Amino acid sequence: MGILSDRSRFARTVMAEESKLAADLTRKGKKIIRLNTGDPTRYFKTPRYIIDAYISALKKNMTGYSRSADTLRLKEAVSKRYKRMYSMDVDDDSVIVTNGVSEALFYINSSLINRGDSAVIFKPYYPQYLAYLMMHSGNAIFSIYNEKDDWSIDIDRLERKLKGLPRNKLPKYMLMTTPNNPTGTVLSRQILREIVGISNEYDIIPISDEIYDEILFKKTKFTSLGEVAKGIPHIILNGASKNFNATGFRIGFIIIPEHDRKSMQIKDGLSNYVITRLSVNTPAQYAVTEALNNVSQHKKELLMMLKEIESRIELTFEILSENRYIDVIKPHAAFYLFPKIHINELRFKNGTEFMTELLKKKGVWVREGYGFGMKDYFRVVSLATEEILTDALNRINEFCKENTKRGS
Amino acid sequence: MGILSDRSRFARTVMAEESKLAADLTRKGKKIIRLNTGDPTRYFKTPRYIIDAYISALKKNMTGYSRSADTLRLKEAVSKRYKRMYSMDVDDDSVIVTNGVSEALFYINSSLINRGDSAVIFKPYYPQYLAYLMMHSGNAIFSIYNEKDDWSIDIDRLERKLKGLPRNKLPKYMLMTTPNNPTGTVLSRQILREIVGISNEYDIIPISDEIYDEILFKKTKFTSLGEVAKGIPHIILNGASKNFNATGFRIGFIIIPEHDRKSMQIKDGLSNYVITRLSVNTPAQYAVTEALNNVSQHKKELLMMLKEIESRIELTFEILSENRYIDVIKPHAAFYLFPKIHINELRFKNGTEFMTELLKKKGVWVREGYGFGMKDYFRVVSLATEEILTDALNRINEFCKENTKRGS
Repeated sequence: MGILSDRSRFARTVMAEESKLAADLTRKGKKIIRLNTGDPTRYFKTPRYIIDAYISALKKNMTGYSRSADTLRLKEAVSKRYKRMYSMDVDDDSVIVTNGVSEALFYINSSLINRGDSAVIFKPYYPQYLAYLMMHSGNAIFSIYNEKDDWSIDIDRLERKLKGLPRNKLPKYMLMTTPNNPTGTVLSRQILREIVGISNEYDIIPISDEIYDEILFKKTKFTSLGEVAKGIPHIILNGASKNFNATGFRIGFIIIPEHDRKSMQIKDGLSNYVITRLSVNTPAQYAVTEALNNVSQHKKELLMMLKEIESRIELTFEILSENRYIDVIKPHAAFYLFPKIHINELRFKNGTEFMTELLKKKGVWVREGYGFGMKDYFRVVSLATEEILTDALNRINEFCKENTKRGS
Repeated sequence: MGILSDRSRFARTVMAEESKLAADLTRKGKKIIRLNTGDPTRYFKTPRYIIDAYISALKKNMTGYSRSADTLRLKEAVSKRYKRMYSMDVDDDSVIVTNGVSEALFYINSSLINRGDSAVIFKPYYPQYLAYLMMHSGNAIFSIYNEKDDWSIDIDRLERKLKGLPRNKLPKYMLMTTPNNPTGTVLSRQILREIVGISNEYDIIPISDEIYDEILFKKTKFTSLGEVAKGIPHIILNGASKNFNATGFRIGFIIIPEHDRKSMQIKDGLSNYVITRLSVNTPAQYAVTEALNNVSQHKKELLMMLKEIESRIELTFEILSENRYIDVIKPHAAFYLFPKIHINELRFKNGTEFMTELLKKKGVWVREGYGFGMKDYFRVVSLATEEILTDALNRINEFCKENTKRGS
């Protein structure tokens, strides 16, 4: 490694590798269709009422380090949201504002994980979950979402794994995503209740990344961890990026609703981190406060975006279902699909080669499954216009047909 | 510590403690005059041309994760600044954009420091320097700025210290601040040359935090590390906060100008960190690009602010010079003064008690020296209006007189 620290190698994620390859191809003049980034702003405008609030903050010279009073208004807006949506009592001191969920995850690992501590991570996982745990010398205890059960958690299997561990090797936290990135599914209330039960029994902190909690397709019922975890320490992650279509603002929240000794320690620990790095972008905090408080406007904007996303997901699902070299499960939320590649039927040795060849030959950039901890899968972001999606997805189908082992 | 990691205790800095005390007093209704935060936006407006660029980016829907092309424009603007101001050749790949210098320091320590590695930190230091080094299991080798020599570096003493170390205990980097926070002084070209010489000889990376490099009072000659470190790996930290009076934007830069093997490794390591956490606030990057590129407008705005700051510094220096219970050196740059308390002549056991009593009894919040690694000093931020400053500083003088050991 030379000059770099050992931990820094975990920053070199598959995402970093892919980005470098794509940048290289772009530099060489290759046109790339990007189905790789979960960024709705590329296809939908951030709602006007949020932009107006942002501009108004700038005009009022809200350009300094945030004062605690400023951040307090945002925390109050977050509290109200959780009261409104999930009947949760979250006081202002239980909300911590971060530079996106990325910083939240970084600080959670830094403040909780000692060398050799472990944490449960479910596969497929959001890549930072593992990267940040490893950077802090933590060990991952992998569990797996069950593809055959709509990517839900197999509680018995999880419990067998925990039972097999000596008391001092039990994980410190258990980190799940619902709605899920990359699978587009949600965890049921029943499963979350069982997770809470296990967490309590084994003294593990459940953490739920719920950044997509309003990106739900019709009839999908979503349960927040906070609704079922009352009375035990737990952590919820959320932010403005997806529900409010404001990825570039970089505003995330950590919510630690309870007041038991552990929860209080974690709040205190995380508060020190955020004080030390001074502040999050101040005018963006104002904008997100308005985004959260103007409920009627938000509902209108969200509905419009959801309607579009849902029809794009339908289209993507339809086209990919025609492809006999992959299996794909229909998503109920978020904006991803996570097909499994029949790698044995294709000319590629693994999903990495599949993804890089698809990028180089067909100019379609999907994220390879390996970055999410799953070999021979890939993630498609279904946000582009129907025209772009149709073109890109047909190229994927073509690409598979052209690369069967038997020849096309 | 309970649930928290060992490293997390280093996030509990003196700054965090002070903030909690002040928040507590404010909650109890105490009026506080804040001479504690180096935030010029509280007294000067962020220049209109920068706000306009920010608003324009928002109106153009620049609200998503930054694309590499967006960040590239900012990197180009930074490169041009270093060419223009310091005749340095900095290519775009040598600039890394961060959430303020805070994140830059965090990532530098995370990517360079292995358990047991050491780094030279000069006292008084900016508190994060030590906190972030310790959080990454690094050891500080303290050197001291020489108060008697206008807070410059005593090179002989530094070298004696390095000579005494076994080869495998040599520090990985040496981190200095010029213009300095909290002393308000600058390092001369000659001293920087000697620092470069030593860094080269002992194979240490010099890092210079130059966030105040345009906040210079008349006749003060500033030298950037980059002007004298050509040919050896070195790192410069800067950002929009102070020179452009935009603290709440949270835009910082890391500049690694050279292309030797070490420099390339560090650039690559840091790039992975910033890719993994996705992006810095996007519209703020546009605003800072314009801030940097519109040189004539910037010069005008800067001059106006400098003129005011300088007269406030003069006033502060004058009033504090009347106080026979402290010693204060006149600053040449930035907006801080760092007086030494004659603690033996006062009724307080140390600078911590001095600071907390001053806050509780007189409602004046200065930062205590201990947070900067110096006992029995305090830092005054000289940005408030002359009226507020006069009031607050007279309270400090009164406070000292009322608390002499012999009685007042």
